[in-house]
Amino acid sequence: MATSRFFNMPPFASTWNKSKVSLQQVNITSNAIQKTVRFSVINCSLKINHAQPALNDEIRVPSVIKEMENEEITSPSVAGRLVKGGQVFQQNVSVRSFEIDSEYKMSTKAIMNYLQEASLNYAKKLGLTIDTRFGITPGMRKMDLVWVFRGMHIEVDRYPCWGEVVQILHWTCASGRTGVRFDWTINDINTGETLVRASCLAVMMNKNTRKTCKLPEEVKDEIKAYLREDVEPIVEAFKYSCPQIEAMDHIKTGLTPGWNDLDVNYHVNNAKYLDWILESTPDSIRDRHELWKMNFEYRKECLKDDVIQSLSRVVPNNEKNREIEVEHVLRLESGHQVLRARTVWRTNSHSCRGINSMKTIF
Amino acid sequence: MATSRFFNMPPFASTWNKSKVSLQQVNITSNAIQKTVRFSVINCSLKINHAQPALNDEIRVPSVIKEMENEEITSPSVAGRLVKGGQVFQQNVSVRSFEIDSEYKMSTKAIMNYLQEASLNYAKKLGLTIDTRFGITPGMRKMDLVWVFRGMHIEVDRYPCWGEVVQILHWTCASGRTGVRFDWTINDINTGETLVRASCLAVMMNKNTRKTCKLPEEVKDEIKAYLREDVEPIVEAFKYSCPQIEAMDHIKTGLTPGWNDLDVNYHVNNAKYLDWILESTPDSIRDRHELWKMNFEYRKECLKDDVIQSLSRVVPNNEKNREIEVEHVLRLESGHQVLRARTVWRTNSHSCRGINSMKTIF
Repeated sequence: MATSRFFNMPPFASTWNKSKVSLQQVNITSNAIQKTVRFSVINCSLKINHAQPALNDEIRVPSVIKEMENEEITSPSVAGRLVKGGQVFQQNVSVRSFEIDSEYKMSTKAIMNYLQEASLNYAKKLGLTIDTRFGITPGMRKMDLVWVFRGMHIEVDRYPCWGEVVQILHWTCASGRTGVRFDWTINDINTGETLVRASCLAVMMNKNTRKTCKLPEEVKDEIKAYLREDVEPIVEAFKYSCPQIEAMDHIKTGLTPGWNDLDVNYHVNNAKYLDWILESTPDSIRDRHELWKMNFEYRKECLKDDVIQSLSRVVPNNEKNREIEVEHVLRLESGHQVLRARTVWRTNSHSCRGINSMKTIF
Repeated sequence: MATSRFFNMPPFASTWNKSKVSLQQVNITSNAIQKTVRFSVINCSLKINHAQPALNDEIRVPSVIKEMENEEITSPSVAGRLVKGGQVFQQNVSVRSFEIDSEYKMSTKAIMNYLQEASLNYAKKLGLTIDTRFGITPGMRKMDLVWVFRGMHIEVDRYPCWGEVVQILHWTCASGRTGVRFDWTINDINTGETLVRASCLAVMMNKNTRKTCKLPEEVKDEIKAYLREDVEPIVEAFKYSCPQIEAMDHIKTGLTPGWNDLDVNYHVNNAKYLDWILESTPDSIRDRHELWKMNFEYRKECLKDDVIQSLSRVVPNNEKNREIEVEHVLRLESGHQVLRARTVWRTNSHSCRGINSMKTIF
């Protein structure tokens, strides 16, 4: 049995409502990424039923990324490397045949897996972690602390194609006194265009009491050199209210984790939750649309013998601009919620069928 | 809906018993791989209830691999490349955090996924396939033919660790008049030691009639320059008799494919079958042992709405040398068999916990 956890969920929802993640309006201009992106103005609490609109603000990508020369951005680095004095981690990955959907596009689940991969490799590359364990510093080990995800926000502009090489950039920021925010972009290796933006709040949890806690000073000291303070999240959480479970009319029951869904600690990997969300998403949406924006609020960890119910509801009166919004809940048969999520779907933006997407690696 | 299939299963068991795969005793000596491996003597028919012992024979790795200089074997090539005039495909891959088991070792499922990946990239790299489609040559497209797997045999000497870079070598051979045999080795990038050997028979199937057929001359002409004829399979199928379904006492029912288990053709990916096999494998075996040898006999394709029963039985009186042999059947609720398999387990050979396995990529 493992002694460390990194990308799993805190077990008790009661420990979740202590802090806020400010995910605010942005006007990103990156010389390196060569793309300007405008977000709408939102400030979202993790306690989603208390979400509030917020003041306008500007989110900038870290200056270290802005300053990166093009050759740094585009040079191949499949194994991963530190850039700008270790303040940013860069890793290139190619999209595999077993990571694509029916349109030969990288699956959202695969994207989530590679975000995790970049974070773990970053921590390891920095020498912050002990032996092979998932992101555990010596200070964390001493205090029996592990990392847990609280909220993940992902926005996909374009899904990479099978065989395409993409570049992941990853950096971390202090997030109040409570946790650490992870940010990622996934970029077109040839044009520098940003394809995916993701932001996630991770906090400390005592693996014995299963309760979250503030970031201890000792751990903060271990990682502070690599915690940025000058940047806002790379992607916003979009506003939504508390899911109306009683109105959820698309339900799939009896979902169980397989052995290959468990991580090194016998807990369900965070990306698996997306599989279960899809199981109760109406066919008409899943077949003719693609995931565009996702907010995940992790509420409880999931173990091998848990049986999951997946509930979804298409949010009414919200099909403006051909977008469809769906709210989701995953819960145990006991009724305890494992995940709340909100997804926004758009009509399929493109297909990778017929595209010789291998040109980038061959 | 897709028009091509590559690594799925033929739908009708009735088409399966026409040909044999000779998987014979071996004495492999590869200067490049720098390892000698001895197999036991076996000749196994795909019609496993007719399996016969065979004459001794020598299996050699292809001369092109023997002749490869060390720098060719060990030079980094993550994207994949042709070596020795295109007769061998080489691809280096690193083991990801989401591809490992609880001991930080690469999962068998991940290994199977990368075998498929190497084959598809090889076909593409050779320029044999049209656009992005999975291994479909122009001749195959004209005749509505697709590739299907009939039998896969895998033997794992050592599971790679998280972060380890391994090298995949892949080549193909004509296999009688019926099909093509794919062979792979996965090798330690530093020592050249062979970690995994795999061999698979793939045949043509008409995607309209769902029946397998001989390799058409037109297609053979398209690929013959890359079909080797001088080598035997890199790994044997071990002998076993017809599974005793009525005696199978470990049963898991109600298994269903998720959306992320489907490939570009909405069929279940061949590696997913391993997940389902594990579901009915006794905990005592799965928790304290590791998969060593596997024979898979694919009998029927599996679609999104199929409900699978997984049945397993530990073969009695076979625990010599601390090996445990298990026979498996996956079947639909209608009783139609989807897969027959035989697995051999050994006590865990090693753990990657505590090993700084990242040293090979950082």
